[in-house]
Amino acid sequence: MPKTHTTTPRADGFRMPGEFEPHAGCWMLWPERGDSWRLGAKPAQDAFTAVAGAIARFEPVTVGVSHGQWENARNRLPEAVRVVELSSDDAWMRDCGPTFVVDDRGGVRGVDWEFNAWGELYFPWDKDEMVARKVVEMLGFDRYRAPLVLEGGSVHADGEGTLLTTEECLLNPNRNPALSKAEIEGLLKDYLNVEKVVWLPRGVHMDETSGHVDNLCCFVRPGVIVLTWTDDPADPQHEISAEALEVLKRETDARGRRFEVHRIIQPGPLYMTEDESRSIETRENSISPEAGERLAASYINFYIANGGIVAPRFDDPMDKPALEVLGRLFPDREVVGVSSREILLGGGNIHCITQQQPLGNSKETPWEA
Amino acid sequence: MPKTHTTTPRADGFRMPGEFEPHAGCWMLWPERGDSWRLGAKPAQDAFTAVAGAIARFEPVTVGVSHGQWENARNRLPEAVRVVELSSDDAWMRDCGPTFVVDDRGGVRGVDWEFNAWGELYFPWDKDEMVARKVVEMLGFDRYRAPLVLEGGSVHADGEGTLLTTEECLLNPNRNPALSKAEIEGLLKDYLNVEKVVWLPRGVHMDETSGHVDNLCCFVRPGVIVLTWTDDPADPQHEISAEALEVLKRETDARGRRFEVHRIIQPGPLYMTEDESRSIETRENSISPEAGERLAASYINFYIANGGIVAPRFDDPMDKPALEVLGRLFPDREVVGVSSREILLGGGNIHCITQQQPLGNSKETPWEA
Repeated sequence: MPKTHTTTPRADGFRMPGEFEPHAGCWMLWPERGDSWRLGAKPAQDAFTAVAGAIARFEPVTVGVSHGQWENARNRLPEAVRVVELSSDDAWMRDCGPTFVVDDRGGVRGVDWEFNAWGELYFPWDKDEMVARKVVEMLGFDRYRAPLVLEGGSVHADGEGTLLTTEECLLNPNRNPALSKAEIEGLLKDYLNVEKVVWLPRGVHMDETSGHVDNLCCFVRPGVIVLTWTDDPADPQHEISAEALEVLKRETDARGRRFEVHRIIQPGPLYMTEDESRSIETRENSISPEAGERLAASYINFYIANGGIVAPRFDDPMDKPALEVLGRLFPDREVVGVSSREILLGGGNIHCITQQQPLGNSKETPWEA
Repeated sequence: MPKTHTTTPRADGFRMPGEFEPHAGCWMLWPERGDSWRLGAKPAQDAFTAVAGAIARFEPVTVGVSHGQWENARNRLPEAVRVVELSSDDAWMRDCGPTFVVDDRGGVRGVDWEFNAWGELYFPWDKDEMVARKVVEMLGFDRYRAPLVLEGGSVHADGEGTLLTTEECLLNPNRNPALSKAEIEGLLKDYLNVEKVVWLPRGVHMDETSGHVDNLCCFVRPGVIVLTWTDDPADPQHEISAEALEVLKRETDARGRRFEVHRIIQPGPLYMTEDESRSIETRENSISPEAGERLAASYINFYIANGGIVAPRFDDPMDKPALEVLGRLFPDREVVGVSSREILLGGGNIHCITQQQPLGNSKETPWEA
């Protein structure tokens, strides 16, 4: 019988696993709002469909869709992908979805963070705020309601006690202005059951999420990190990545290990075109992307599936070397590149639109007959 | 991988089981529309909550709710009941939900009938039309799309080849005007895998569904039927029930058995009060119930759960004898009466708002941890 606990995952022996640990499946949402996605979201729907299809080769995928888009989504998505009705304000399951935590006996529970649309950047967010709770309820899992405004994309766990995040995002006054850094760190430790939080200064240049870590760097496995990079000292991203590298070089993880850090050269720089900008609706309460604006493009924004890596491609010369690095870093997984510029135009990438559900002792996924 | 078959359940060896066969659980919807339910549906929500709670004592219950009512439903329903987002135009899961069929190896599939809101009685019905498909997809079951306008409440199967229905409903020109009786019977045989359809003339007096059989009579088990009854020859229901009894006495079932028919004396007659009528919204495209209108009250409109019977009560002198008859007919099940006048005011009763999901070899219900 699902319930909402008033204790914490830490107190109950639940921890956030690494994304590279086994999954029961992957959750996504369906893009539709015209002020986030150009041309009525049709190109984005194609990109999301390609991502869902790529992940579905490795593990079950469920896509949450509003009633109005249900049939369109069902008709476009591959048959193997499950479609469920799930209203949202936008389509970033990583950020408004639950963060799953597991215990040593295969139990899985969901952490439901407070959500304020990346610092009240888009209005409204009442549907997004309920996504995590609805997913956890649909699964019949128990839930924690964490008293912290946080998006899933702003943290990466190694599953062994270490968390990566950025000060730019988590200490931003648009999220939790009443909480100190120590208080925020305390809540992360309580709700994700980690012992050490590694604070990187800033996220990717021009990232509208206030610098989510999941666009900057992530764990390949405990002790091993991959970081977006540019060798061009004139690119503002250079200083950002160099600062992060410096922190990672002097830090150790919760188990006392030094980090092994790999780099992937970023694409571009890439910019929003005039045509792209013009085909996005403008609204008074939303930020409007302008033609010529630098896009926060990074290969780090990939999804780790069971036996696979689903990574962004930008039709850029750096695609090939980037996917090759991923292939070397994940020798036991098949790397699949998906052309994701249409997701990037909405403000994120493949990792931002996905959320892994850890395997636990999950009576597997009910929808795989 | 769920798919929509273009074959028929009969061709694939799937049959509609009797409601008395084992269930994986029960599906319901949440009432909210003000022109169906008085006082903004709050009294009906209490009644649905009581029904869901009663059934949840015996088997898992899932309630489908619109986004706007999700939190209200979650807060009112017992913790044991699962809430999922599922938009609908009204709340009659029996009629717009899937009819599940099973095969001998424990497989379960869903039949998705065409739905036209009981002969275009209420407008609109686009959301209701999609309920069956969404439920089947959520479960990951395969689906049949039946080329027949039909509501689940208009048929009762014994699971051994026999189907009960009414001519008043299935031959009504508001449903399938282009199909002959033989063609309709052929589709019932193909999609429910029965050999014999027993046609009763009419449903309960004043039943706005055009006389659904599930308010008139049902199977207790193969060969045994219980029928609503009145001994008052001046009551129009007397002739209706007597006609049905006559047919049942001369008919045999698919296995050649004669029917054993039990009777339950109806409550009342019951009528809509002035207060009740006034507290229902009126709309141009909906029928408006009038004060003094006879209500189609019947004890037959109960739900058979695993080990339980959840039956209507009307705070009527006939409640006690009716529940006693059910207790004798179902000696291995606990009979629970639920006060259901608020459901009756909306045009149906407990059976109409529920839909059993047969057990099959269902990896049980995923939401029961």
